[in-house]
Amino acid sequence: MPMPSGGEFDLISRYFDRPAPSGMLGVGDDCALLSPAQGCELAVSTDMLIEGRHFFPDIAPRLLGHKTLAVNLSDLAAMGARPLACTLAISLPSINEAWLQAFADGFHALSRESRCPLVGGDTTGGSPGVVLCVTVMGEVRRHQALRRDAARVGDDIWVSGTLGGADIALRLAQGRMPPDPARWQAARTFLELPVPRLKLGRYLAGVAHAAIDISDGLLQDLGHVLDASQCAAEVWLDALPADPVLDGLDESIRLDALLAGGDAYELCFMAHPRRREQIETLGRQLGLAVSRVGTIQRGTGVRVLDADGQALPITHRGFDHFSETA
Amino acid sequence: MPMPSGGEFDLISRYFDRPAPSGMLGVGDDCALLSPAQGCELAVSTDMLIEGRHFFPDIAPRLLGHKTLAVNLSDLAAMGARPLACTLAISLPSINEAWLQAFADGFHALSRESRCPLVGGDTTGGSPGVVLCVTVMGEVRRHQALRRDAARVGDDIWVSGTLGGADIALRLAQGRMPPDPARWQAARTFLELPVPRLKLGRYLAGVAHAAIDISDGLLQDLGHVLDASQCAAEVWLDALPADPVLDGLDESIRLDALLAGGDAYELCFMAHPRRREQIETLGRQLGLAVSRVGTIQRGTGVRVLDADGQALPITHRGFDHFSETA
Repeated sequence: MPMPSGGEFDLISRYFDRPAPSGMLGVGDDCALLSPAQGCELAVSTDMLIEGRHFFPDIAPRLLGHKTLAVNLSDLAAMGARPLACTLAISLPSINEAWLQAFADGFHALSRESRCPLVGGDTTGGSPGVVLCVTVMGEVRRHQALRRDAARVGDDIWVSGTLGGADIALRLAQGRMPPDPARWQAARTFLELPVPRLKLGRYLAGVAHAAIDISDGLLQDLGHVLDASQCAAEVWLDALPADPVLDGLDESIRLDALLAGGDAYELCFMAHPRRREQIETLGRQLGLAVSRVGTIQRGTGVRVLDADGQALPITHRGFDHFSETA
Repeated sequence: MPMPSGGEFDLISRYFDRPAPSGMLGVGDDCALLSPAQGCELAVSTDMLIEGRHFFPDIAPRLLGHKTLAVNLSDLAAMGARPLACTLAISLPSINEAWLQAFADGFHALSRESRCPLVGGDTTGGSPGVVLCVTVMGEVRRHQALRRDAARVGDDIWVSGTLGGADIALRLAQGRMPPDPARWQAARTFLELPVPRLKLGRYLAGVAHAAIDISDGLLQDLGHVLDASQCAAEVWLDALPADPVLDGLDESIRLDALLAGGDAYELCFMAHPRRREQIETLGRQLGLAVSRVGTIQRGTGVRVLDADGQALPITHRGFDHFSETA
């Protein structure tokens, strides 16, 4: 299809080129150049988002710009890393300048706020829908990264923020729940403007042992930590920080949203019990709820206990990009 | 569409997980962890490849795996950087295990050969065709990177290898030239198995001033250097290293392939004339032709001079991802 105007280089400079911070070479060379601090390791993560799969075709482009970066920053947060820079590759079926401007605005606003400058990119055409790929780079002091394989038997399991909000928003947006405008208004922000827990992650580096962001659902993401750390977990249902948007819903939906709801971008982290006071103080300082929801144990798998100490029959395993139907 | 088996995590571990080199944390955590050397800057580049746009749907997957990484490594080469690690995001319309295995084989073979381990990735479904996005990271000693904005008036302009081979292969593959099996056999490697000039790039760091890889055609890529360095260039047509696959072709096709043919992945670099002997010695040591093809001058734009010193009327500006028709 013929393109109305511009060209790859015009597009990059018009919407995505920003002056690089001092000491960095940004968009416009074969590579960007960065200078990580001494004594730090470089943390790197990449995510691809496909129209129709990871976002609706009619999503507001400004929100999409935010979310595209947010989901990647969340991976840095879960590693305890400070953002250093990001790259963006974008494929568009056609050029819509208003769309691009709004997308870039949303991306750059979060980029500025999180001090994660866009330093490189690739703009292309040829995909039937929009495809986005962001790579983020961050730095974390050597040996302080919050790795998945570092949970230890006896650790507390913590969750930041609240759970279930994004899942309910997704159900409402997809028509899998009856329309409920008030609930949608309360829930949509979780889905549309997720906040990567960067400050929490950075403060936890050197304090907690392990962390993961809850992008695929608590049980599935916790399961990744347990598999990597070769241990088991007990989770207390009543201790899980259910978001108020879950109030009044059927118990089966509540359970599913709490345990298997994805797109949450809160952190689930493991720390020694002697860190409890420090972590609670940290939560208060950041104005962010931190809830102690279970313990790491010997063995394998997750047991979720109800108020009576009875284990729930667990069948929820969260979101799997290939086993669902598109 | 329902997926036959596996799931995101199975796919990643089955085809793409390799033990990370010592001191690195690879696939399987929120982020990969790398340790760039002290005194080095980090060079980062990202490229997205779309089925039907950047490669044919029926391309041999092993060749695609090679090329996907090669085009990114070429950006590191053009910066004078040593590869450190790469990430791969891949979206597939469906799971074809034989295809994935061959793709991964091609990718890993070049990854091993160039010492650029795959440390992170994202596998998803949902795109109608295959979409690939690679980000490479490399390291280059501080102040030695071959930047586009560092060409100086009086510099020699050099080109590595030969020019035009990939362009002829592309014309034959797309049926834009009459079938010519012998020429196709001689040309296809340029298109299918491009060799990133990593060693040349590394040795040129600290020797040459500026460099770019010829991915969009000599004139267009040279133009980027001139724009960034605010200078002009004179290029001698007879000095350009025409590949033998151009022999016997019409002059208009030869010219177009030489000056505007993309996908070449040779380096075009600029160095002070006192470096001539050093650069020629380097070429001999690497077994790679290096040709001195022009000079950097005051002013703007490129003049291409024929054997009589007459300037060619230049209309070739290479490949632009948005102005062509898909």
